[in-house]
Parts: sequence; C-alpha cells; structure tokens
Amino acid sequence: MEAAELVREADLPLMVDLYELAMAQAYWSEGMDDTAVFSLFFRQMPENRNFILACGQQQAAKVISRLRFTDDHIERLRKLDRFKPEFLEWLRDFRFTGTIRAVPEGTPLFPQEPLMEVEAPIAEAQLLESLLMNYVHLETVIASKAVRLRLAAGGRPVVDFGMRRMHGLDAAHRGVRAFRLAGLSGTSNVLAGQDFGLNVSGTMAHSFVQACASEMEAFEIYARLYPGTTLLVDTYDSQQAVKRIVEWLKASPARISAIRLDSGDLLEESRGCRAILDDAGFTDIRIMASGGLDEYRIRDLLGQGAPIDGFGVGTATGVANDAPALELAYKLTEFGGEPKMKNSPGKRSFPGAKQVFRQYDRSGILAGDVIAGVNEHHQGVPLLRCVLESGQLQAFDSLDDQVRAAADAVDALPDLLKGLEQTDLAPVTISDGLRALQKNTLARLRE
Amino acid sequence: MEAAELVREADLPLMVDLYELAMAQAYWSEGMDDTAVFSLFFRQMPENRNFILACGQQQAAKVISRLRFTDDHIERLRKLDRFKPEFLEWLRDFRFTGTIRAVPEGTPLFPQEPLMEVEAPIAEAQLLESLLMNYVHLETVIASKAVRLRLAAGGRPVVDFGMRRMHGLDAAHRGVRAFRLAGLSGTSNVLAGQDFGLNVSGTMAHSFVQACASEMEAFEIYARLYPGTTLLVDTYDSQQAVKRIVEWLKASPARISAIRLDSGDLLEESRGCRAILDDAGFTDIRIMASGGLDEYRIRDLLGQGAPIDGFGVGTATGVANDAPALELAYKLTEFGGEPKMKNSPGKRSFPGAKQVFRQYDRSGILAGDVIAGVNEHHQGVPLLRCVLESGQLQAFDSLDDQVRAAADAVDALPDLLKGLEQTDLAPVTISDGLRALQKNTLARLRE
Repeated sequence: MEAAELVREADLPLMVDLYELAMAQAYWSEGMDDTAVFSLFFRQMPENRNFILACGQQQAAKVISRLRFTDDHIERLRKLDRFKPEFLEWLRDFRFTGTIRAVPEGTPLFPQEPLMEVEAPIAEAQLLESLLMNYVHLETVIASKAVRLRLAAGGRPVVDFGMRRMHGLDAAHRGVRAFRLAGLSGTSNVLAGQDFGLNVSGTMAHSFVQACASEMEAFEIYARLYPGTTLLVDTYDSQQAVKRIVEWLKASPARISAIRLDSGDLLEESRGCRAILDDAGFTDIRIMASGGLDEYRIRDLLGQGAPIDGFGVGTATGVANDAPALELAYKLTEFGGEPKMKNSPGKRSFPGAKQVFRQYDRSGILAGDVIAGVNEHHQGVPLLRCVLESGQLQAFDSLDDQVRAAADAVDALPDLLKGLEQTDLAPVTISDGLRALQKNTLARLRE
Repeated sequence: MEAAELVREADLPLMVDLYELAMAQAYWSEGMDDTAVFSLFFRQMPENRNFILACGQQQAAKVISRLRFTDDHIERLRKLDRFKPEFLEWLRDFRFTGTIRAVPEGTPLFPQEPLMEVEAPIAEAQLLESLLMNYVHLETVIASKAVRLRLAAGGRPVVDFGMRRMHGLDAAHRGVRAFRLAGLSGTSNVLAGQDFGLNVSGTMAHSFVQACASEMEAFEIYARLYPGTTLLVDTYDSQQAVKRIVEWLKASPARISAIRLDSGDLLEESRGCRAILDDAGFTDIRIMASGGLDEYRIRDLLGQGAPIDGFGVGTATGVANDAPALELAYKLTEFGGEPKMKNSPGKRSFPGAKQVFRQYDRSGILAGDVIAGVNEHHQGVPLLRCVLESGQLQAFDSLDDQVRAAADAVDALPDLLKGLEQTDLAPVTISDGLRALQKNTLARLRE
C-alpha cells in the first residue's frame, strides 16, 4: 500500500490513534465485550462564543457504518508488532454493530450537552474515538464561527473565499458543508460548492488587472465575457477606478452588478465609491467588501453606516481564527449497565446515557435545555435522535431540509446569545435525576 | 459524479476558486498566453513567531504535475453556465507546462521571502493559485508551530496526539509530515505515522481504566499485553496510583517504561510521582506529560525543574492555535517579461522573479538573507531550486534527508530566533537591484 497524497475514504480505518487499537485488543483479549456508552460533548464554551453549532454528526455516522479493514490494513498493523494474529482477524471482520444517537446537523449547543452518543460493544466504540472526533470537530468549529459572521451581516450575503487558508483539502471541502449549515450564501470553491449545493461565485484577482494593458481593459474584458459581473476596483486606486467605470458605463451597453473592495479603509472607500455610483445614477450597482474581515469588522462597518451590500470572508472564518479548536471530549459514561465517570481535577463529567430536552417559550424562542438521563421524561423537544441503529444507517433529511432546520434553530435563540459579545447566559439545567446519578457514582468511586 | 465524503486526488482540478477559472478563460479568450511569474510569500511575521518553517512545496509541485480534468469535471463546469465549449476543451487538454522553483522542505523563512515561484503561461499559473496555497499553507502553519514545541522541549521527545482536533482528515494526515519536518518524535496517528515514517506510539485512555474492575487491573492487563508500556495514572489520583504501581512492580516480574500524567498540576504531580518512583528504586521509569500543553507550558514546566521526560501534545500544535493562519500571498510579479507589482495600501510587494541567498557566519550560524532578482549574484546559498521544470517533476531528496536538512537549517538559526519570545531581529536585506526594480516599476505605474 503506497502512501497516497490524500487520505482515501477506504483507508479511514487506519485513521486511528494507536491507543485505540491497543485498548481494543486488550478488551478483546480479556473478553470485555459488554456494551459501553460514550458521549461526545464539550466542557466549556470557547472564548467569544455563546453557542456552538454542532455539525458533521450524521456524516460521521455514515463514515463509521462503512469502516472495513482490508488485507492491506491488516498487513500494515502486523508490522507494528504488537497485535496478535487472532485480534487482527477480529479487525478484519470488524463492522460497527452499535447505535449512535446525535443532535440534528446545525443544532446550537451549550457545554455538557452531547453532540452524539455511541452505544456499542466497548472495543467497537473505542476504535471510533479519534476519527469521529476529527470528523465532527472540523465542521462544528467552522460552522460555529461562520454563523457569527452571518448574524453580524444582518441578512447581507456572506460568501466564503477561504479555501487557500483552510487547513488542508478536507477542511476546504467539508468546511463548505459547515458554511452552508451556518447560513453563508456562497463559496468560491467549485468542487465543494457543487458537492454541497452552495452557490459558487467569484470574479477576478488583482493579477488579472495587472496582466492587462490597463485596469479599464481588464474591466471591459470581464464585462464582455461575464455580463453582470463584479469588478475588483482596488488594484491601484478604488475611487479613481469607479470614476472611470461610471464614465465607461454611461457610454457603453456594458452592465455590471457590483464592485468589490479588497483593501484600504473599507468605510471610507465604500462611502466614496457609493457616492460616485449614486451621483452617476448607478444606484443598483452593489458594493462588496473583502480583505481581512471577521464578525467584528462587519458589525463595526455596518454600525458606522458603511454602504456595503455583501461580504467575502476568508481567513478568519476558514480557520475559525479566534477559537480554532473546541475541547471536545469522548468519554465513557456507562459500561455493562454501570454508570461511569471521570473524577480528574477539572474534568468531572456526568455519568450515563443522556438526552437533552429543548424547551421554547410561547413566541418560539428557546427558553432552556434540560440535560437528563436517557430514560427520563421532561417537557421539550428531545434533541438526540437515532442516526445509526444496530449498525444500520437511518434515513437522513436532505441537506436542504437540514439547512432550513439549522437556520430555524439559530433564529430561535434569545437575542443575547445571537450577539457577538460573550454572555453568562447558559440556558441549561441538569435534571435532578442526572445530579443524583452523578452523586451516587461519585460515592461509589470513593468507596 | 457523486459527491465523495472525502476529496479524491483525482478531483483536485476542481478544488479551484471559481475566479481562477474565470480569469483563465479570459486569458484564453484574449490570447494572453505570455509567461507569468507568480510568487508565494508572506508579508508579515505572525505574532508569536520568529520564523516560519516552509513545508509542502515539493509535494504541491507533485500534485500540480498530475492535475488532469476528466470528462466528469468538464461536465460539472459546463453546468456553471459561464464557460465556452472551446475553453472547456482547452481545460480537458490541460497539463501544467511551467517551471516551479521552491525552497527545500523545512526551510526557516522570513517575510517577503518566496516559498515558491511559479513560471508558466499565465492561465496555467493562475489556475493553481488556491490549490497550491491550501497545500503549502497547511503544512507550513503546522510545522511553524510544532518546531517551537520541539525547541522548548530541549531534546526531550514531543509526540503528536492531535488527530482529534486537527481540521479534517487531510490536516490530520499531512500534518504528520509537517510534524516530522519540524522534528517531533512520534505520532499517535497510525496511517499518517506509517505513510510519513514517523514513529507511531500510544498507550491507553481513561476509558480503559474506567472500564476495568479497578485501576490496578487495567495496569496489569496492559503490562502483560504490552511489556514496557506506559501507564496513564491520573484517572482518579496520580500519586496514589503510582504508589500502588511501585508496590506491584516490587512483587511481580511486570515491567513498564513510563507513566503518563494528563491533568492536574503537572509540576507538583510530576515531582510527587518522581519521588515515589525514585524512593522505590524505579529511577528508570520515565514520566510523560500531556493535557493542554503548548511551548510556553513546556518551557515553564522545565524551567521550574519539573522531572518530565517527554511530552504528548495535541490541540495547540494540531491547530497552531495562536497563529492558525499565515497570510500567504500568491502574487503576479512578472508578465511577458515586464515586472509587475501591486500598489494597494499596505500590500506593496517586490516585482520580478527572485532568489534568496542565505549567508552563514564562520561558525555556521545564519548571518543574513539577501532577497534579490533571480539573475543577480550574491554570496550565500541560493534557497530556491527547481522542483518542476517545463512540466517535468524533478527528483526529490528522500523524506529522511529532508528531515535532516530541516533540522540543520533550524539549528543554524541564531539563538534569539530560536527562542519563544518574538524578536525584532529580521535578518533579511533587499538587494540594491531589487530595490531599483521596485522603484522603476512603481514609477511606471504612476505614469
């Protein structure tokens, strides 16, 4: 098996941390095959976030349902010189036979709420750990950032230009799925836009302007080839360029839909360009802005009245620059019917399989979540639903439906949580049943 | 063509920003096929960095040399409804015919120094932009962070545990290549470790300890299955666990090589555990630490005398948390033999194809770099070398040799640059020739 330049889906069984295989062999060798429940959750809200947008769970379940170790994989593992032939045979027959419950794609979540719960013979559940976390972490981190830009833009389109900065090609590809769930309007990435049904857009780079004999020649070529295009005006002097554009448009049948500013003082430049366009009667030509934008810059620009109609965003969104990692944990919470929990300093968790009940007020705004044991009954909508049952993948909603549901779920958040400033509002309560279970489990640990 | 869960290497021609295809069609339609030179560089050092470690250039050249548009790709592009059939035919015949020069993998670089230069008919060079940037950005950002942890650890092994937090599967895979070039000692990631020749390691998670009847049972199983293993001791109480371990080891033939601490006060815990081990005569059992470590924590722990022999690092390294993006630019610097440059506010660059000459003092320490025009002659080692010539991939050094050369290049940096604190030392000068070219090019822009 030669090293591929890119990870292939067929090789995902080997995208595993060695300790998962070592533990799986230990469970296998000791005959420990009772059912375990693992919970995927996060302990603390990252700085600068009021909620995270859980994404990727259903896709992760799909990938997990397809994991198969091939002869090549077995041969590679044999070379590590720590696995018994009989265990490698067990791996060769590996199929995930367990059950996975997950919150819907694009669900806003708070600390301690499970994104997913995996229930399976312990070796199976353990083997998935890093792959599942990697899969869900990427989309969740990216969507949790992007939704903030969407909220800051107040309905104006926000388009992803981030491929060049996103961490590798899988991030640049699946990240676009996360952008769609977060409500962005488009992407520059052709493959990902088409794969995930997000509008693909883009116009020109400065290099095109520089390669032409003059800036106006570049504009004329584009308007002819791409009627209704957007022109990038800041290669030399934005307002000079816009003055020339309006003179040209007055004298020709060419039509453009927008100009784009990519550098300089976007407030001043957008005002100057807007005035030039309006004075010439081109009130329908929009102004797009890009270049180092994040949710704070967008809020500030709009707050100061910048006449900007849409935003292209790249670096900040593409790498979730202010919170590029979420401390997702994948913790054993039940084994052989016994509740389990960790008691390391600062890492205490709640034992047992769980459900989250989301409650709304009369106007449809989120009133609070109750985190409870899986068999408890509470008011509200249970968020965790079965996506994989006894190894069988369940039917998914279409991505279109998921995108609509995600938008509704974000819209239903209280305004304070939709703001950019971090708030102490954490609309989550732990059920009495779960608190009692934690107390009892802790008491047993201390015996 | 059905959407794959993961990007396939065969589909990389569509990992393109739409504007690159739009510009390529414009160049094609206008008969603009002169040779262009694009330079890949960064304008400013990110915060908390004294150098970046350029990685991924040779691999990117390899990927570029293999790009082929298939019938499926052409059909997808046709659906975007903006490309002429004749241009799509041109794409179907696309082969990269240009020349790429790049610095060796693992080269420390400073602002304005090209990582790569692409010289090709302008449409070809333009098409590569986002793919090439994505490819090199990932490995460079990850390696530039990881090398700091290696330097902070002062020769102690640093092992990557980051798969679960890295942005997607390509990052988790190719990131390990970057870790190897940065000098890390191992990885938990089985596929990536084997693909890129980095030692694969790992032992147990807390869940294994919790699933066993007792912590000691977990330890005994592991020591039996994996002689010389590392035991994770912090699930309940680290020093209590180590006390039990030494009693057990005194009475049994079991042997372990290390214990691992993953939470709590690592200074206090490592001291306490070291004392217990030493008092019992187990001076050869090492102490490994993990859990939220970065270069500053490692430096502080070692500075305070923590008896820690090696580090497992995950989140901070895996996402380069303090500088997850590098503002790489891919700029047109020459077209049809004419030098080109951008003059946008804050984005002025140097025109023309370039070379970087690296000069050393008598003791082999880097004395300074000269950024010059490609045809200038200066003292020092020219860093940019041809990796792809007229479309033909050149022979690469083995990854082993690249890793050794990268270590030598980092070792040759002055101590100030190898420290964690950012310094103003920027050992780079611009040649008189390049300054004159910039001045003349700017004067022509202003005519």
